[in-house]
Amino acid sequence: MDSDNLSFYKDRRVLITGGLGFIGSNLAVRLVALGADVLLVDSLAPDYGGNLFNIDAVQTDVRVNISDVRDASSMQYLVKDREVIFNLAGQVSHIDSMRDPYTDLEINCRSQLSILEACRQHNPAVKVVFAGTRQIYGKPDYLPVTEEHLVRPVDVNGINKAAGEYYHLVYNNVFGIRSCSLRLTNVYGPRRLIKHSWQGFIGWFIRLAVEDQEIQIYGDGSQLRDLVFVDDVVEAFLCAGASDACNGEVFNVGGNGPISLSDLVELLVEVAGTGRVRHVEWPVDRKSIDLGGFYADSTKFMRAVGWTGRVDLRDGLTRTVAFYRQHLDRYVDTPLDTAPGAS
Amino acid sequence: MDSDNLSFYKDRRVLITGGLGFIGSNLAVRLVALGADVLLVDSLAPDYGGNLFNIDAVQTDVRVNISDVRDASSMQYLVKDREVIFNLAGQVSHIDSMRDPYTDLEINCRSQLSILEACRQHNPAVKVVFAGTRQIYGKPDYLPVTEEHLVRPVDVNGINKAAGEYYHLVYNNVFGIRSCSLRLTNVYGPRRLIKHSWQGFIGWFIRLAVEDQEIQIYGDGSQLRDLVFVDDVVEAFLCAGASDACNGEVFNVGGNGPISLSDLVELLVEVAGTGRVRHVEWPVDRKSIDLGGFYADSTKFMRAVGWTGRVDLRDGLTRTVAFYRQHLDRYVDTPLDTAPGAS
Repeated sequence: MDSDNLSFYKDRRVLITGGLGFIGSNLAVRLVALGADVLLVDSLAPDYGGNLFNIDAVQTDVRVNISDVRDASSMQYLVKDREVIFNLAGQVSHIDSMRDPYTDLEINCRSQLSILEACRQHNPAVKVVFAGTRQIYGKPDYLPVTEEHLVRPVDVNGINKAAGEYYHLVYNNVFGIRSCSLRLTNVYGPRRLIKHSWQGFIGWFIRLAVEDQEIQIYGDGSQLRDLVFVDDVVEAFLCAGASDACNGEVFNVGGNGPISLSDLVELLVEVAGTGRVRHVEWPVDRKSIDLGGFYADSTKFMRAVGWTGRVDLRDGLTRTVAFYRQHLDRYVDTPLDTAPGAS
Repeated sequence: MDSDNLSFYKDRRVLITGGLGFIGSNLAVRLVALGADVLLVDSLAPDYGGNLFNIDAVQTDVRVNISDVRDASSMQYLVKDREVIFNLAGQVSHIDSMRDPYTDLEINCRSQLSILEACRQHNPAVKVVFAGTRQIYGKPDYLPVTEEHLVRPVDVNGINKAAGEYYHLVYNNVFGIRSCSLRLTNVYGPRRLIKHSWQGFIGWFIRLAVEDQEIQIYGDGSQLRDLVFVDDVVEAFLCAGASDACNGEVFNVGGNGPISLSDLVELLVEVAGTGRVRHVEWPVDRKSIDLGGFYADSTKFMRAVGWTGRVDLRDGLTRTVAFYRQHLDRYVDTPLDTAPGAS
C-alpha cells in the first residue's frame, strides 16, 4: 500500500474490537502513527490475549473502553461515529471451544451479531473488516488453499468463526454494511499471548525458546505451516479498511511460503540462540483436531488491494524474540513449569 | 429401502425433535407403522409449524414431550435411552432471521449444541440424523448443485443452519456421536404449516389454491425449483438413521427433477381445480434474499443408502390438496385476507 492510501487513515475515526489483543494492539500502534482517531474496545477476559501493556507505547494517544462485544447496548453507543471498524474480538482457542461450546458460541456468534446489528441500526455507513481464520477450511483437499476451498471446520471454534464471517457477508449484501473478512493463517510477532499454549503453537514455542527450554514437536515435524508476521497482517487490515474493492468478499492472508514445523523450530532456536527441540508422540486429543499441512494462496487479496507480505521469517522471528526478551515479565506471570498447557 | 432394512425400526427407541412439525410428524406416523417406540419433542412455539393435529392418527401410539430443545437439562433427560434421534427442530423462516437474528441463533445454533452435548454426556452411542437445508448453498454457481458446492448462505437463518450442521459433523468426528445431515430442498406434502407465508412459498401456494384464491408469482416464474414429497423425505431419514455409511457426511435430498415456478403453479391449479395465477413485480426485500434457480443432485445419497424419490409431483400435489381439503380448519385459524404474509 503506498503512502497516498495510508493517508486515508489521517484523522479517520477507527474502532478496534479486541483492541488490547495481539493483532488489535499492533494495529492500534500503527494507526496512531498514521494520525487516526483510535478507539479500542476489549473485555480483558482472562487468558484471551488482551493485555494493557500491549498499548504501552500509545496509551495517551488512544481511547480504551473496557466492555464485552456481546453487550449489545454498549456496542450501539460505541460504533456510532466510527468510520472504520476492525473487528478482531473473539475466542480463539480450539481446545476451549470443545470444552465449553456455549461460551464460544456467545463470543464468536452472538457478539458478531451485536456488532453488526449496532452498525445496521446506528451507523450503516461504516466499513467493517473482520478477522477470519484459515481454521474454517479444516483439513485441506489441496495446497495452497484458495478461497474456493470448501469451508469444513473441524472444531466448534472453527464453526462459530465461520458463522461470524458469514454474518458480515450477509450484512454487506442485504443491509449494505460494507464488510469483508480476512482469513488469517498463523500470525506471529510481538504482543501475542505467550503465557499458555491454548491459543496455538507459535506463541508457546517462542516463549520456550526465549526461556531456553525444550520445544516439543508432535510427530516428525514435517507438517507444513504458513506463518505471517503481524506487521504484514496490520498492513492487510489497513488495505482492506481503505478499499471498497473488498466489500462482501473473503480473502486469505498468509505468509510468503510454507515451512515445515521442524525447520521453523530450528530457525527459531537459531535466531534466539536459546531453546532446543525434542520430537514426541502425538497426544490423542491433539491429533483428533490437527489439520495436517496447511498453507494459503493469498493471490486474491494481493490482486484486490495490492498488498504483499514484506517481512521474512528470519527477520520476523528476530524482532519477535527481541521484543519478548525485553518485556518478558509483561507477558508471563507464572513460572513456565506451572503455566496452563505446559507438558 | 427394502423391507429388511425397514425392520431396523421395529421396537427401536426413536426421538424426533420438532416432532409435531411438518416432517417430524410425517416421520412419526411412519415410524409407528414400523413398530418403533416413538418419543416426540416439540416446543409448539407459535407460528413455527408444530401442530398437535399433525399426530392425530397416532396420538395414542407415541409419547409427546412439550419442551424447547434450547433447554439443556430437559434434553439431557430426553436423549438418555434413545437409539436414533431425528433432529428436525429449528426456526425455518428466512425473513424472521433477518428481523431477529438472536432468536434464530438460539434456536438453530444453541439448541443443536444442547442436543449434541446431551448425547455426548448421556448417550454417546446414539445415532443422529440432522435436517439440513439447501439454503446454505446460497445462489448456486452451477446446477444441479452437488455437496461439493461452496456453503455461502444469504441470510442469518442459512448461516445458523450451516453452523448447526457443522456441529453434527464435528461431534461425529471428534466425539464419535454418529451423525449426518440431509440437505433438503423444497419439501411439500400434508401436515405442513400453511397459515402464513413466512416459511416458504409452497405451503402458502397450496393454501391459496385450496381456498380458490389468486396465487402471485414474483417475476416471470421461470426460476427453477426442486420439490420433494414429504413421504420421500421420511424415507430418506429412515435410510440415513439405519445406515452407518452416512456417518460424518452431508447429503443432498431433492426431487426427481426441476420445475419452473410457473409450471408448478399451473400444475397445482390444475390438480386442485381451484385457484388462479397472477405475475407481479418482485418486492425489493424479497428479491434481495432470493436465490434464483435451484435444484440439487442427490446422487451421493442414492449411492450411499439406495434411496430414491418415488412420488411424482402430480401425485404428491394431488395427495396434498386432498389432505388440506379434508382438514383445512386444523391448519387455518384466521381468514386468508388477515393471515400474516398475505399480500
